[in-house]
This record gives sequence, C-alpha cells and structure tokens, in this order.
Amino acid sequence: MPIVEIKGVGFFDAKESENLLTLMRRHGVTLPAGCGGLGLCGMCRVRVVRGTLTAPTRREIEILADRLEEGWRLACQAQVISDTTLEIPAARREATKARVRPPVRITPSALFVPVKVESGEPSYEEELISSLRTLGVHATQLSLSALNSLAQRSSGVAVIVEGEVLDVCDTYSGYGLAIDVGTTSVAASLVDLVSGAITVERVSLNAQLKYGSDIISRIRYALQEPEGTARLQQAVIETVNRLLEEMGARAEKVYRVVVAGNSVMLHLFFGVNPRTLGFLPFRPLYRRQMRARGRDLGLAVHPDAHVVSLPILGGYVGGDVVGDILSADLSGYDKAMLIDVGTNGEIVLKKGDAYLAASTPAGPAFEGVGLHSGMMAVEGAIEKVRVLGAREIEYLTIGGTEAKGICGSGYVDLLAELLKAGTLSRDGRLLDGPHVKEVRGVKAFVLDEERGIVLTQLDVRKLQLAVAAVKFTAKYLMKVSGVNVESLEAIVVAGDFGYHLNPQNAMEIGLLPKVDESMIRYIGNGSLTGAEMYMLSDEARKMAEVLLAKCRVLDVPREERDFISELKLSW
Amino acid sequence: MPIVEIKGVGFFDAKESENLLTLMRRHGVTLPAGCGGLGLCGMCRVRVVRGTLTAPTRREIEILADRLEEGWRLACQAQVISDTTLEIPAARREATKARVRPPVRITPSALFVPVKVESGEPSYEEELISSLRTLGVHATQLSLSALNSLAQRSSGVAVIVEGEVLDVCDTYSGYGLAIDVGTTSVAASLVDLVSGAITVERVSLNAQLKYGSDIISRIRYALQEPEGTARLQQAVIETVNRLLEEMGARAEKVYRVVVAGNSVMLHLFFGVNPRTLGFLPFRPLYRRQMRARGRDLGLAVHPDAHVVSLPILGGYVGGDVVGDILSADLSGYDKAMLIDVGTNGEIVLKKGDAYLAASTPAGPAFEGVGLHSGMMAVEGAIEKVRVLGAREIEYLTIGGTEAKGICGSGYVDLLAELLKAGTLSRDGRLLDGPHVKEVRGVKAFVLDEERGIVLTQLDVRKLQLAVAAVKFTAKYLMKVSGVNVESLEAIVVAGDFGYHLNPQNAMEIGLLPKVDESMIRYIGNGSLTGAEMYMLSDEARKMAEVLLAKCRVLDVPREERDFISELKLSW
Repeated sequence: MPIVEIKGVGFFDAKESENLLTLMRRHGVTLPAGCGGLGLCGMCRVRVVRGTLTAPTRREIEILADRLEEGWRLACQAQVISDTTLEIPAARREATKARVRPPVRITPSALFVPVKVESGEPSYEEELISSLRTLGVHATQLSLSALNSLAQRSSGVAVIVEGEVLDVCDTYSGYGLAIDVGTTSVAASLVDLVSGAITVERVSLNAQLKYGSDIISRIRYALQEPEGTARLQQAVIETVNRLLEEMGARAEKVYRVVVAGNSVMLHLFFGVNPRTLGFLPFRPLYRRQMRARGRDLGLAVHPDAHVVSLPILGGYVGGDVVGDILSADLSGYDKAMLIDVGTNGEIVLKKGDAYLAASTPAGPAFEGVGLHSGMMAVEGAIEKVRVLGAREIEYLTIGGTEAKGICGSGYVDLLAELLKAGTLSRDGRLLDGPHVKEVRGVKAFVLDEERGIVLTQLDVRKLQLAVAAVKFTAKYLMKVSGVNVESLEAIVVAGDFGYHLNPQNAMEIGLLPKVDESMIRYIGNGSLTGAEMYMLSDEARKMAEVLLAKCRVLDVPREERDFISELKLSW
Repeated sequence: MPIVEIKGVGFFDAKESENLLTLMRRHGVTLPAGCGGLGLCGMCRVRVVRGTLTAPTRREIEILADRLEEGWRLACQAQVISDTTLEIPAARREATKARVRPPVRITPSALFVPVKVESGEPSYEEELISSLRTLGVHATQLSLSALNSLAQRSSGVAVIVEGEVLDVCDTYSGYGLAIDVGTTSVAASLVDLVSGAITVERVSLNAQLKYGSDIISRIRYALQEPEGTARLQQAVIETVNRLLEEMGARAEKVYRVVVAGNSVMLHLFFGVNPRTLGFLPFRPLYRRQMRARGRDLGLAVHPDAHVVSLPILGGYVGGDVVGDILSADLSGYDKAMLIDVGTNGEIVLKKGDAYLAASTPAGPAFEGVGLHSGMMAVEGAIEKVRVLGAREIEYLTIGGTEAKGICGSGYVDLLAELLKAGTLSRDGRLLDGPHVKEVRGVKAFVLDEERGIVLTQLDVRKLQLAVAAVKFTAKYLMKVSGVNVESLEAIVVAGDFGYHLNPQNAMEIGLLPKVDESMIRYIGNGSLTGAEMYMLSDEARKMAEVLLAKCRVLDVPREERDFISELKLSW
C-alpha cells in the first residue's frame, strides 16, 4: 500500500482506492471540507509535491481549473496510486487542542453546499431540495429562517444539518457549541463544523449559583417559586450566552448545540421542572435526548439551530456521564472504572459488555466552592502543593501567576502532604504543628500568610465528606458486580481537576484505590469532550443510544454506619 | 341486519359485529368518546331501552358497574344483535351546526386517556408511554408542558395528539381551532375534539388591513419595512387571538390548530416573507404543510398545541382552495367547476381524475370592501334586493335589523335588478332613471336615501372588474381542458356570500354561466370547513396530499383585449 507524507504532519498508510480526505480523517488529520466530500466547495484542496494520483475528476476540473497544473487537487476526489507527498496550506491546518479527544471517525455534522434557485418551480423550497438531491445531498425541508433567506437571495451556500437546510448564506463556515452544564460551573467549546476542530473553549460559574450552591437547593427553588424553573433556566442560558460572547462566537453561524450535564441541570436547561428528582424514588421526568431550536431557549445562536442533549441514563446519572463514557473510550478493557468527581459525583463500572453506574452527592468542595480559600481551576489557583519538612511549603499556581486561592488538585495535594507530615490525622483532625494556627477562632493550616490562603478544619471536613461519598459509591458498585481492585485494568478520572491531580496523593487520601499509577488515566472534562464527540460522530451518537438502553443505574443504599467508616482518609 | 333506533334522532342500519359508536359515526351522529373508543373514558354511554346487545365487556363492567342493570352500555363496546332502541342523554347530544360539512369519517384527532404513574421507572415519561402502550394507545413522547404537568401530578387525563402526549390534565375535553385567513376577513371555528362537533364560529376583519387592502400592498409592506413580515404576522395572530376570546375559548384546552388561507396569508401566518409571490414567476417559497407550536406563533392556545396549515397547491392557489375542494366533495362528478369568489378569486376545474386550478386577483368588492356602502355579510347588511318597477325597492338585511350597508350578495342582486330594469347597461354604465342621482359629483343609484346607502358608478366598475376576473379565469380553464358549459355536471360556489346569493341574478350579471339552477351548490366558507375536515379526518388529510401532488396550477395569460371583452355584465 502506498505511503502518503503530509509535510509537517507525518506519514500515513493509504488503503486501496481511498481518497485523500478519507485517509486524513481516518488518521485524525483535520482538513476543512464544507460540502462533506462531494467535490463542491473546494475547501479540501491540497498541493501534490510528488507521486501519482488518480486523474482529476470533472468536479476538480471545474473548481481548480488552472491550479490543477500547479499540483493542486481536491482531497475528497483524488485517490493515491503511488507514494505521495502533499502540502496542506498553513492557514488550513488546525491548531492542536488542549483537551484529549479519543480518535473519532468524524461524520459530517453539517454540510455546506453551493445552491442556486432559478425557476422557483413549483416552489423555491422544492426546487432547492431537488437540486440538492441531484448533487447527492439529502434534505427534506428548509427551516423558517432558510425560507426567509431564500426570499431575499436566489443563490448562496446552503447549510444542512440533520437533513434540514438551516440557512442559505455567504460563507462555507459554521460552528457547533458543546456545553457541559455543571451545578457549579459551565464549560463550553466552539467546534468548527467544517473541520471538526475545537476552536476555542471557556468555563464560567453557573449563574444559577445565586439560587443555591447544590442541586437540592435548586430543586427547592424550582418548587417553591412560581417562576422558579423558568428563572433557573434563564440563569443557565445567560451563562451560556456570556460564554458565547467571550468566545467571540457569531451567533448566526452557530448551527448546532449539544448539551451535556447532570439530570437536574438538563431538566432546567430545557425548562423542565426537576421536582421528581427531589423526592423518592429520585427519578427523572424524562431520559431521552431532548431537542429544541436556538430561539426556543433564547440562546445567542442561529434561531433555527438544532439544540440536543445527551440522554440521561437514570436517576442522577445524567448526560454528563454519557459524555464521560464516550470520551473515556472503555471499549478496550474488560473491567474498568470511571470516576467523575463533581458536585454530583458519578461512578461507572464496566464489566465485559455491561455498564453499571451510580451517583453520589459529593458536594462542590473539589470545585473549590464552600471552602475558605477555594476557587475554580483557573489562573492563579494553587494546583500543586508540597510540604517539605517542618517549615518549607512549595506551591505552584495555574499560569504561574500570583496565588489567589486553592483548586481541587491543590486540596488533594495538601491533604496528602499533611497526612504524610503528621499534621493531619486519618480521621481528619488538624493536629498542632508548624503553620497550624487559629484563624478567627478556627484551627487552620496557613499556606500563604501574606495572601491569607489557608485550609481550615471545616474545609477538611467538607473534603473528607466528598472523598467518602465517592469511595463509598465506588466500593458499592464493585461489591454488587463482584469486581475487586486487583482485577481492574484501568481507572479513568474525569473532571477538570484530574488534569493537575497527583495520582499518588489521590491514592494517599483514599479518593482512588491504591493501584499501579500507569493504570490511571485523566480525561479532564469528559462531559464536554463527549458533547463534542456526539456532535461530530455518528458512532458516538449510536453509543449514547446503546448506553441509554443498556447501562444499569443503581441506587446506592446509604447505610449510615458504613458511610461513616468511609470518612477515614484512606481507601 | 338489525335496525337501531336512537330516540329523537332516527333509525339506522347496523352492520355485522359493528359496535354502536362506529354505527353512529358512520351515520354522522356525534357522541363524545374521549379515549377514541377504547372503553376507558366512559363518555359514550347510552341507555338501551329495548333489544339485545353483546354481553358487557370487562371495561364496561369496570366503568358502568351498577348502571349496567339500568340498561347503560358503552357505545364503543356493545355490538347490536337484534333490533334495538337507545337513548342518548340529552346533554350529550350535540347542537346541529350552521355550515354544511360533507359527511366525513371522523378519525380521532385527539385521544383523552386516564393515566397514572407510580414508580417513575426508569423515568416518568417512559412509564407513562409504556402504560399507554398496554392500553393500545400509541405515543412516543411527552410535550414540554406535559412533562411539567407530570412534575406536579402523578395521575390525570393524558391528551394525545399525533402520537404526542400534549397535556396531563383534569378533564376529558379539548378543542381544535380551524381558521380561514382571508386577505380581508378571518373566520374561525372551535371544534370539540371529543365529538367532532363545531361548537362556535366567528368572523372578523383581518387586522392586516391597516397595512393595505389587497395582497400586493401586503407584500410591498413586507418588503419595504425592516420588520414588515413580523408585523403582518403579529396582526393576523392578534386577529385570531381576538376571535378566540370572542368564542370564549379556554386557551389551555385548544390542542390543535388547522390554518387555511391563500398563499400570501399562509406565508405571513407562519412568519415567512411572501416576497417571491410579488414578482414573476409568482411562486411561493414553500407549498408543504407548515408546522409550528402554539407558543412559537404567540397564539392564545395551549403552548404545545400542534399548528398545521393546509398545503399550498402552487402560485396563488393556496390552502384555502384545498379546503374548498375538500368541502366541495367533487368525487361524484366527472366534470365540475368550483368558484371561490374572494379578494383573491380561485377557480378549480375537475375533469375525470384531474384537477386544474388557477387564481385571479378579483379584488375585495364582493367582500364589501372599497365600495361606497359596502360591508361584510354580518347583521345589518343588505343581502337581498328587488327593484319593483320604477319606484319601489325592496331589500332584506341579515338578521332583519336596520340596514347598515350592502354585502356581496346584495350587490349581485342590485346589479342584476338594475340590468333588468334598464337602469344599468351591460357595459356597466348607470343610466338616468328613478333613484339615480348625483351624490357628491358622482352618479349613483340610491337604495336608501335616509340611511345614505347607495351604489355609485365607481362601485359598479369595481364589481364589474371582479366579475370579469372570475369569468375570464373560469373560461380559460375550460378552454385549456376542453370542457364546455354544457358538459358541466355541477358548479360549486364557495365563499361566504354564496349563502345568500340569488343564483339567477349571479347568472344574469355573468358571474356564473347560464345553467340549470339545480346544478349550482353553495358551500359557504369552504376554506374553513376544509380546515375542520382536515382536523377531524384522515381521509381529508390524505386527499390534501393527493391534491398537493396532483393538482395542476395554471398561470392564466392575461391578454388585455380578451380581458376587456369580459367586462360585459353577462357570461
């Protein structure tokens, strides 16, 4: 089989009669292709420096014309015959992204196809649909705004999402918005629908925080205030709109939105009262993928944008966990565990083909909320701590700037280091020692006196409860399915704080079982990554359906005696 | 076959193993049946006075209990064995309606089924859908507001429309709104979705009139004003909301809306710019059935109500004509013509299985707009006129009240009577004679001096143009299809003024060809009736699809010379 070298990118095997675009997608090399590989938009052009390809197609001759002689080809049309060297124009190569997304087979999630209506026969819509059909593009109707575009113009680029022409516009460009709605923070990223690349990503506190910091207080607010559900919905929509603004998104070019989030967050995002999640048996009103239009929700995106959610698996195991599972890609393991440490913690255990899941109200401690010096994992947050002997304390902040507070991974380090230094007992008492003082009447470990950054006894209790909740739930799932720590092949840690986590310290405090460090993987915000995958890949969408049908969600019986025994800071 | 007597209603043949409800529906006897005949709601109960029926079913035993002994049965469960006499409780019999609706096989357009959720397993929505399935009721999801209802209550009556649970409420009741949006006036009726009966009906001027009286001025407004389309949409929605209020509709109980109207009116109703209908080749942006939710349009109906339109057949032949054809029921004729005299006039010619249609801008004269003493066909409008000899004039008003003006049928009479009396020439000139005077410098025939009700020379010209437009188009269709007046089996006149029309006079002025009077049928507002049928009957919905695919819409070439020759007031 011939080898294709893409300059500055790498060497790749070609399959028989595989065109260049398919080859690049198979290897995760992103290249824009607005029309989905039909040879219509000319965006996937590459320059051949060396080698033999199949003869130019009619589409290539039409679109490239003179440039064919200079070696330009359309990647979607040309097939490799001999070893070949290519150049991709620098401007077309996408920046690599910060978060790890497992290799997904990108299926066109929006098509951009040039169209022209002439006769308007028997209606403009029908002529457009039928001209798309002759190009091999399936669409059944035009959205309201596409109809209104067509009232003003007779040609342009049709933007097609899920078989609907959403827009008729000027440019071969469009974006998808992936959102992870957490109880405490909301993360979002903009995906270039042409290339599949992530262009920008932001995180912000959820404006719902003004109605209470945990899920229960949100449910209570929705129940007790007449417009409670609507106000909570408005708060999260405002948060997302602010993120869109910060990311510099042009509203009218955002055609798809995929939302992940826990069960309560998803109910509220779509304006569904989360009441049933507040009472026994704690079941969601719905589990399926919800669908809406941009305008229905007041999102600053295209008014007809398709907004969909990841399904809820059951109870408090929501679309965020579906996202985690998609991005954790557990398919290669027989026995593996996924842990998402959020305000609502979730554990998934895979055993063979079976998925078992449960949730636990861990509280927002590891998101830095409710702790004396706690903060989100953003610039200025202390993410790593070392206590050297009696006197010296070393810490690192995110971005290397002046310390403003402590984020989740910093707290994990701090607890572990204090345990090892003997300043903290396994049952969570701060002992007398260097840097331990009374701060406004409460015992506290002073990390940075000048900046007032401390760990109080109360902080330790909150962190201890969060660790116990996760540990208790993980142990329960393992017990039910007869899987022990020794037989686990992998532990995947989801959640933003995983990035900066010191695995030895996480094991030290009992947040993770003691295993070989190489078994532990961090996927960061798997919920957001999963939302992106769901937007880009048919396979991911199918997997989500499989999980909805097959993943078993367990209620964890909270025997008080057992739970209290898990408060000890070790596995 | 046994005979069933329904006391106070009539005698009906029963078919073998036909249940009473099916028998009544077949014969057009309306009886409420909320659950669609599943034996769940108990609304179709009747009392058997005499005769033998099949043994009570399990459902009847559950629902009727003691009342079985008093002769009560559920019409949907009981089958006739011998000749039978029944009573329907008086309160359950429906009032007869004013407009003529051809017999339609009513298919349940909404189901009302008692439901109860218990476990919420795996979600409340899924439990409800699955409990409906065990009752034989198909539904795939709950609407947003049904989900929110279910958050507040665990049992109630599920209202199911087109496979979606729209509401979970307290009562076995719900309504459908049928609307005919005309350029000049908007008519609406409320249909009881349980029985299929029309409960109330109203008509009002279209508030869009403030933006111009004809279609062209509406299109111009939509083009020239930045928010033109939105304002025109708002105006018609306000009109409909006012009608709903006048009809005393409870917004939250209106679950279905079917809209008929001409092409431009349908575009505007859904917020689609009608620009393409203002320029050659005068084609609509879309033809298909449009769909929306009540809340999308700001209608004072259930927020999740299903709003659908009758399809547009092409050009200016819109959903109003589909409605006309549905209610004209031309299936029994080989050659027949349908004439709808509105501001936009439409003609349909049926020849064998083929339908041929064309439209003509007749102007609003026959709706009483733009004429000196013109008014809609409402109370106080002169609907019939006789000119007896030189002096005496007789007229009748709608409702027999004091005359306020003249409506379409009154003008037809007036023109014909003046032609016969020699006061009007065939080419439309008012001649000197009794009651002809100068009114503010214009020649006019004075019908009622005291009340200032007159027919001016300008009025005659406008009426003459309206007649010519209809006649010219009808003749063109007949020429194209090779059908002559003699071979026509029926002429169906649609439009409100048809009710009061004197057919001899309509023939006298050339609005209709000279045929045997028995061939002429009036269906009134066929567009509104068609919308009701579309709401109630699968057959009507299928017929609309057939028309969309098969009806040929012609552009009528307007040869000026030919058109001028049609200005003569005779066929």
